Amino acid sequence: MNKQFRLAARPVGMPKRSDWNVVEEAAREPGEGEVAVKVLHLSLDPAMRGWMNEGKSYIRPVEIGEVMRAGGVGVVTASKSDKFKPGDHVVGSLGVQQHAVLREKELTRVDPRLAPLPVYLSTLGMPGMTAYFGLLDVGLAKAGDVVVVSGAAGAVGMVVGQVAKIKGCTVVGIAGGADKCRFVKDELGFDACIDYKAEDVKKALRTHCPNGINVYFDNVGGDILEAALANLARHARIVVCGAISQYNATAPIKGPSNYLSLLVNRARMEGMVVFDYAARYGEAAKEMAGWMAQGKLKSREDIVEGLDTFPERLLMLFKGENFGKLVLKVADA
Amino acid sequence: MNKQFRLAARPVGMPKRSDWNVVEEAAREPGEGEVAVKVLHLSLDPAMRGWMNEGKSYIRPVEIGEVMRAGGVGVVTASKSDKFKPGDHVVGSLGVQQHAVLREKELTRVDPRLAPLPVYLSTLGMPGMTAYFGLLDVGLAKAGDVVVVSGAAGAVGMVVGQVAKIKGCTVVGIAGGADKCRFVKDELGFDACIDYKAEDVKKALRTHCPNGINVYFDNVGGDILEAALANLARHARIVVCGAISQYNATAPIKGPSNYLSLLVNRARMEGMVVFDYAARYGEAAKEMAGWMAQGKLKSREDIVEGLDTFPERLLMLFKGENFGKLVLKVADA
Repeated sequence: MNKQFRLAARPVGMPKRSDWNVVEEAAREPGEGEVAVKVLHLSLDPAMRGWMNEGKSYIRPVEIGEVMRAGGVGVVTASKSDKFKPGDHVVGSLGVQQHAVLREKELTRVDPRLAPLPVYLSTLGMPGMTAYFGLLDVGLAKAGDVVVVSGAAGAVGMVVGQVAKIKGCTVVGIAGGADKCRFVKDELGFDACIDYKAEDVKKALRTHCPNGINVYFDNVGGDILEAALANLARHARIVVCGAISQYNATAPIKGPSNYLSLLVNRARMEGMVVFDYAARYGEAAKEMAGWMAQGKLKSREDIVEGLDTFPERLLMLFKGENFGKLVLKVADA
Repeated sequence: MNKQFRLAARPVGMPKRSDWNVVEEAAREPGEGEVAVKVLHLSLDPAMRGWMNEGKSYIRPVEIGEVMRAGGVGVVTASKSDKFKPGDHVVGSLGVQQHAVLREKELTRVDPRLAPLPVYLSTLGMPGMTAYFGLLDVGLAKAGDVVVVSGAAGAVGMVVGQVAKIKGCTVVGIAGGADKCRFVKDELGFDACIDYKAEDVKKALRTHCPNGINVYFDNVGGDILEAALANLARHARIVVCGAISQYNATAPIKGPSNYLSLLVNRARMEGMVVFDYAARYGEAAKEMAGWMAQGKLKSREDIVEGLDTFPERLLMLFKGENFGKLVLKVADA
């Protein structure tokens, strides 16, 4: 049997349990070229909120009645593909369910001896790729730059800051709470971390970045984006990766009222979607795995358990309750 | 004697006559390396509103008591510089006054036989340079692109659209009123012009740009910026040149609530300040003068008369009453 969370309604504001139907049905056998996967860990991401909305975005919405989209890592249980055999570990868009059947080209093999499986949903997965290409290809971060990243203790932010340090930048994180800030500074080696729950972010940025920000990697939007815009250096680059503060807004979202700082500072604000870099994931993963092996790049996963708890776990992201990459453990290997 | 408009107060909202003091004093003689210029025409620009505000911007504010900054063209009346002699025509930051004394390096000689003097404040001056470098260097417009420009019948917009046509783009202007739209289409050769006073700009952009906008050159900000953001093509470039709709705002200005369109479309919004291109003005002016001589590039000036009328003439810009580049004639040659 296969338990699934299927989208039942398009949420208004914060998603709630009733926005999904829990359905149990017989697990499907793989057809020709298909692979059956037992889901072990699912990635919980802020972007999932956007996928529940109707309308044009960078990816098609999840349809009502469709299994909720989610990246995941699992183990192959049956295969009608030459590329995968039972026992192989794979990542892909497995969905919020116990068993997935996908086409072989939708899966990528991973090696659990090189890194724990949840890391393939984190630093060696989409969040890590997002950080790497966003920082280097869109943000054009280089040695000597002052890099600021919001959501610094989150899946993307923690990698952004560490890669920036590796590249010779000065790095200031923004995170919620003293524990996260301590982690970001003491464990991850950022130069500073601003606690947005306790500090005036605009003033703190002025203190920590007296010559202005060269790269601001934005995961949150809202007031923190405005605080960064107020502290740009000439020719600064803002990487628009996400806006978690706005995803559950029921009113029109807040645009940055000081966007003309882009003009004053000849600065740039640019959006990025990680899927565009798919052809280069391998290159980035190899470099990041190397940094991890050398102890230069740390990955932290916040692992919560139980497929049944999916709706409440997802909300942890919007409440800032996760610490590192949020991963839902669905089954033992 | 020299009549001057000196800044008396920092305006709140629309500037008014009492924000300046009119002062008459003896015209100063040039010192060593200085040049005395009789002001003939002054450039009236939306940016002047920003210069009246306190605080950090791309240029220092005009101080209280200082002559109001303005670009202008004039004739040399006395010179203690080897570079200029009486009778030479020059452009520079002459200020809102009848007579200016500047250092030789602050002036550039112009030739009234090649173009009427007001054109050196227009297509062959700062607005033209802004259009040229904004469109080509920041907007990266290339043949086949769909280019949209707001303020299309204004000093910068008219040049943006014509240069884009010369470069092989499809060009849609946005302007206020049927007369301006007719001018933009029939005289300047834009492919289309949207009358923002009569049309729903967002819908009209969808109609005229069914495959989305590749370059949006923004002179106005506000709702029109949002309408453009709602119609971007993948990898679009928004050139942030100005935001005339917001310059007199007394509340915090309206940021674009749909800026996440940058993310969805992997698009970029980038500010520009023409002064950064000073080293290349000559190159651009030469190319644009060539296009003018060939009849490919038309310049339109809206010439109003009388230094005394300066405050009211300036407001024409914010009411959309100018048609082409607004120039204040101060004296006959």
